Amino acid sequence: PFACLAGATYVSYLAFCPKGRPSPCGKVNPKILKNSPKVVDTIDVEDINEKAVFCRCWRSKNWPYCDGSHGSHNTETGDNVGPLIIKKE
Amino acid sequence: PFACLAGATYVSYLAFCPKGRPSPCGKVNPKILKNSPKVVDTIDVEDINEKAVFCRCWRSKNWPYCDGSHGSHNTETGDNVGPLIIKKE
Ligand code: FES
Ligand code: FES
Repeated sequence: PFACLAGATYVSYLAFCPKGRPSPCGKVNPKILKNSPKVVDTIDVEDINEKAVFCRCWRSKNWPYCDGSHGSHNTETGDNVGPLIIKKE
Repeated sequence: PFACLAGATYVSYLAFCPKGRPSPCGKVNPKILKNSPKVVDTIDVEDINEKAVFCRCWRSKNWPYCDGSHGSHNTETGDNVGPLIIKKE
Protein backbone atom coordinates (compact mmCIF):
# COMPACT_ATOMS: atom_id res chain seq x y z
CA PRO A 1 0.00 0.00 0.00
CA PHE A 2 2.87 2.39 0.64
CA ALA A 3 4.36 1.82 -2.80
CA CYS A 4 0.93 2.25 -4.27
CA LEU A 5 0.39 5.55 -2.48
CA ALA A 6 3.80 6.75 -3.56
CA GLY A 7 2.92 5.85 -7.15
CA ALA A 8 -0.36 7.73 -6.98
CA THR A 9 1.38 10.75 -5.50
CA TYR A 10 3.92 10.73 -8.29
CA VAL A 11 1.25 10.52 -10.98
CA SER A 12 -0.56 13.47 -9.40
CA TYR A 13 2.67 15.40 -9.25
CA LEU A 14 3.42 14.77 -12.93
CA ALA A 15 -0.11 15.68 -13.87
CA PHE A 16 -0.67 18.84 -11.87
CA CYS A 17 2.74 20.35 -11.22
CA PRO A 18 2.97 23.28 -13.61
CA LYS A 19 6.73 22.98 -13.98
CA GLY A 20 6.49 19.23 -14.56
CA ARG A 21 4.43 19.51 -17.73
CA PRO A 22 4.56 22.98 -19.24
CA SER A 23 3.30 21.80 -22.62
CA PRO A 24 0.98 21.54 -24.45
CA CYS A 25 -1.07 23.63 -22.03
CA GLY A 26 0.87 26.82 -22.57
CA LYS A 27 0.75 26.68 -26.34
CA VAL A 28 -1.26 29.24 -28.22
CA ASN A 29 -0.98 27.64 -31.67
CA PRO A 30 -2.10 24.01 -31.88
CA LYS A 31 -1.47 23.40 -35.58
CA ILE A 32 -0.68 26.29 -37.91
CA LEU A 33 2.66 25.88 -39.78
CA LYS A 34 4.15 23.72 -37.05
CA ASN A 35 7.25 23.05 -39.16
CA SER A 36 8.11 26.75 -38.98
CA PRO A 37 10.12 27.84 -35.93
CA LYS A 38 8.23 31.16 -35.78
CA VAL A 39 5.13 32.11 -37.76
CA VAL A 40 5.47 35.73 -38.86
CA ASP A 41 3.27 37.17 -41.63
CA THR A 42 4.03 40.35 -43.50
CA ILE A 43 1.23 42.13 -45.31
CA ASP A 44 1.56 45.11 -47.61
CA VAL A 45 -1.03 47.86 -47.11
CA GLU A 46 -1.35 47.93 -50.90
CA ASP A 47 -2.86 44.44 -50.67
CA ILE A 48 -5.63 45.59 -48.35
CA ASN A 49 -8.77 46.94 -49.95
CA GLU A 50 -11.20 48.61 -47.61
CA LYS A 51 -10.32 46.56 -44.59
CA ALA A 52 -8.69 43.28 -43.61
CA VAL A 53 -9.41 41.14 -40.55
CA PHE A 54 -6.49 39.15 -39.16
CA CYS A 55 -6.65 36.07 -36.93
CA ARG A 56 -5.09 36.21 -33.45
CA CYS A 57 -6.65 33.01 -32.06
CA TRP A 58 -4.60 30.64 -34.26
CA ARG A 59 -7.72 28.59 -35.15
CA SER A 60 -8.59 30.13 -38.53
CA LYS A 61 -8.76 27.90 -41.59
CA ASN A 62 -7.98 30.96 -43.70
CA TRP A 63 -4.74 31.98 -41.94
CA PRO A 64 -3.54 34.72 -41.54
CA TYR A 65 -7.07 36.06 -41.96
CA CYS A 66 -9.91 35.63 -39.45
CA ASP A 67 -12.67 33.20 -40.43
CA GLY A 68 -14.73 33.53 -37.25
CA SER A 69 -13.21 30.47 -35.55
CA HIS A 70 -12.39 32.61 -32.49
CA GLY A 71 -16.09 32.33 -31.64
CA SER A 72 -16.17 28.59 -30.97
CA HIS A 73 -12.73 28.78 -29.34
CA ASN A 74 -14.01 31.41 -26.90
CA THR A 75 -17.19 29.44 -26.17
CA GLU A 76 -15.37 26.16 -25.60
CA THR A 77 -12.57 27.51 -23.42
CA GLY A 78 -14.01 30.65 -21.80
CA ASP A 79 -11.42 32.74 -23.58
CA ASN A 80 -12.00 36.27 -24.96
CA VAL A 81 -9.79 36.58 -28.02
CA GLY A 82 -10.65 38.32 -31.27
CA PRO A 83 -9.12 39.58 -34.50
CA LEU A 84 -7.11 42.64 -35.50
CA ILE A 85 -8.85 44.84 -38.05
CA ILE A 86 -6.80 47.04 -40.39
CA LYS A 87 -8.93 49.72 -41.99
CA LYS A 88 -8.39 52.05 -44.92
CA GLU A 89 -10.52 55.18 -44.92
CA PRO B 1 -4.75 -2.26 -2.89
CA PHE B 2 -7.67 -2.43 -5.31
CA ALA B 3 -9.26 0.74 -3.94
CA CYS B 4 -5.88 2.37 -4.08
CA LEU B 5 -5.39 1.43 -7.71
CA ALA B 6 -8.88 2.65 -8.55
CA GLY B 7 -8.08 5.97 -6.87
CA ALA B 8 -4.85 6.36 -8.79
CA THR B 9 -6.63 5.57 -12.04
CA TYR B 10 -9.26 8.19 -11.31
CA VAL B 11 -6.68 10.84 -10.53
CA SER B 12 -4.89 10.06 -13.80
CA TYR B 13 -8.19 10.28 -15.66
CA LEU B 14 -9.01 13.67 -14.16
CA ALA B 15 -5.55 14.92 -14.89
CA PHE B 16 -5.02 13.73 -18.43
CA CYS B 17 -8.46 13.38 -19.99
CA PRO B 18 -8.84 16.38 -22.30
CA LYS B 19 -12.61 16.54 -21.85
CA GLY B 20 -12.30 16.37 -18.09
CA ARG B 21 -10.36 19.60 -17.76
CA PRO B 22 -10.61 21.77 -20.85
CA SER B 23 -9.58 24.98 -19.14
CA PRO B 24 -7.34 26.84 -18.51
CA CYS B 25 -5.28 24.80 -20.94
CA GLY B 26 -7.26 25.80 -24.01
CA LYS B 27 -7.02 29.54 -23.39
CA VAL B 28 -4.86 31.64 -25.67
CA ASN B 29 -5.09 34.88 -23.69
CA PRO B 30 -4.12 34.64 -20.02
CA LYS B 31 -4.62 38.28 -19.02
CA ILE B 32 -5.22 40.95 -21.64
CA LEU B 33 -8.49 42.89 -21.13
CA LYS B 34 -10.17 39.99 -19.35
CA ASN B 35 -13.23 42.12 -18.55
CA SER B 36 -13.93 42.41 -22.28
CA PRO B 37 -16.01 39.59 -23.79
CA LYS B 38 -13.98 39.75 -27.02
CA VAL B 39 -10.79 41.70 -27.63
CA VAL B 40 -10.95 43.22 -31.11
CA ASP B 41 -8.59 46.04 -32.14
CA THR B 42 -9.15 48.30 -35.12
CA ILE B 43 -6.23 50.19 -36.59
CA ASP B 44 -6.35 52.81 -39.29
CA VAL B 45 -3.67 52.52 -41.97
CA GLU B 46 -3.23 56.28 -41.59
CA ASP B 47 -1.86 55.61 -38.10
CA ILE B 48 0.87 53.32 -39.41
CA ASN B 49 4.12 54.94 -40.44
CA GLU B 50 6.52 52.71 -42.30
CA LYS B 51 5.46 49.51 -40.64
CA ALA B 52 3.67 48.23 -37.56
CA VAL B 53 4.18 44.93 -35.75
CA PHE B 54 1.14 43.43 -34.06
CA CYS B 55 1.10 40.86 -31.26
CA ARG B 56 -0.58 37.49 -31.84
CA CYS B 57 0.80 35.68 -28.78
CA TRP B 58 -1.26 37.65 -26.24
CA ARG B 59 1.80 38.19 -24.00
CA SER B 60 2.87 41.69 -25.08
CA LYS B 61 3.05 44.47 -22.51
CA ASN B 62 2.45 46.95 -25.34
CA TRP B 63 -0.81 45.47 -26.66
CA PRO B 64 -1.90 45.41 -29.49
CA TYR B 65 1.70 45.83 -30.64
CA CYS B 66 4.42 43.18 -30.39
CA ASP B 67 7.12 43.79 -27.77
CA GLY B 68 9.07 40.59 -28.39
CA SER B 69 7.38 38.59 -25.62
CA HIS B 70 6.53 35.83 -28.11
CA GLY B 71 10.22 34.81 -27.81
CA SER B 72 10.10 33.72 -24.18
CA HIS B 73 6.62 32.26 -24.67
CA ASN B 74 7.92 30.08 -27.52
CA THR B 75 11.00 29.02 -25.54
CA GLU B 76 9.01 28.15 -22.42
CA THR B 77 6.20 26.24 -24.11
CA GLY B 78 7.71 24.94 -27.35
CA ASP B 79 5.26 27.04 -29.31
CA ASN B 80 6.03 28.78 -32.65
CA VAL B 81 3.94 31.97 -32.67
CA GLY B 82 5.00 35.34 -34.00
CA PRO B 83 3.64 38.75 -34.92
CA LEU B 84 1.77 40.17 -37.92
CA ILE B 85 3.68 42.88 -39.75
CA ILE B 86 1.81 45.54 -41.74
CA LYS B 87 4.11 47.35 -44.13
CA LYS B 88 3.79 50.54 -46.13
CA GLU B 89 6.04 50.83 -49.15
S1 FES C 1 -10.56 33.18 -36.49
FE1 FES C 1 -8.88 33.65 -35.20
S2 FES C 1 -9.36 35.67 -34.52
FE2 FES C 1 -11.03 35.17 -35.77
S1 FES D 1 4.90 39.94 -28.28
FE1 FES D 1 3.19 38.79 -28.95
S2 FES D 1 3.72 38.32 -31.01
FE2 FES D 1 5.41 39.43 -30.32
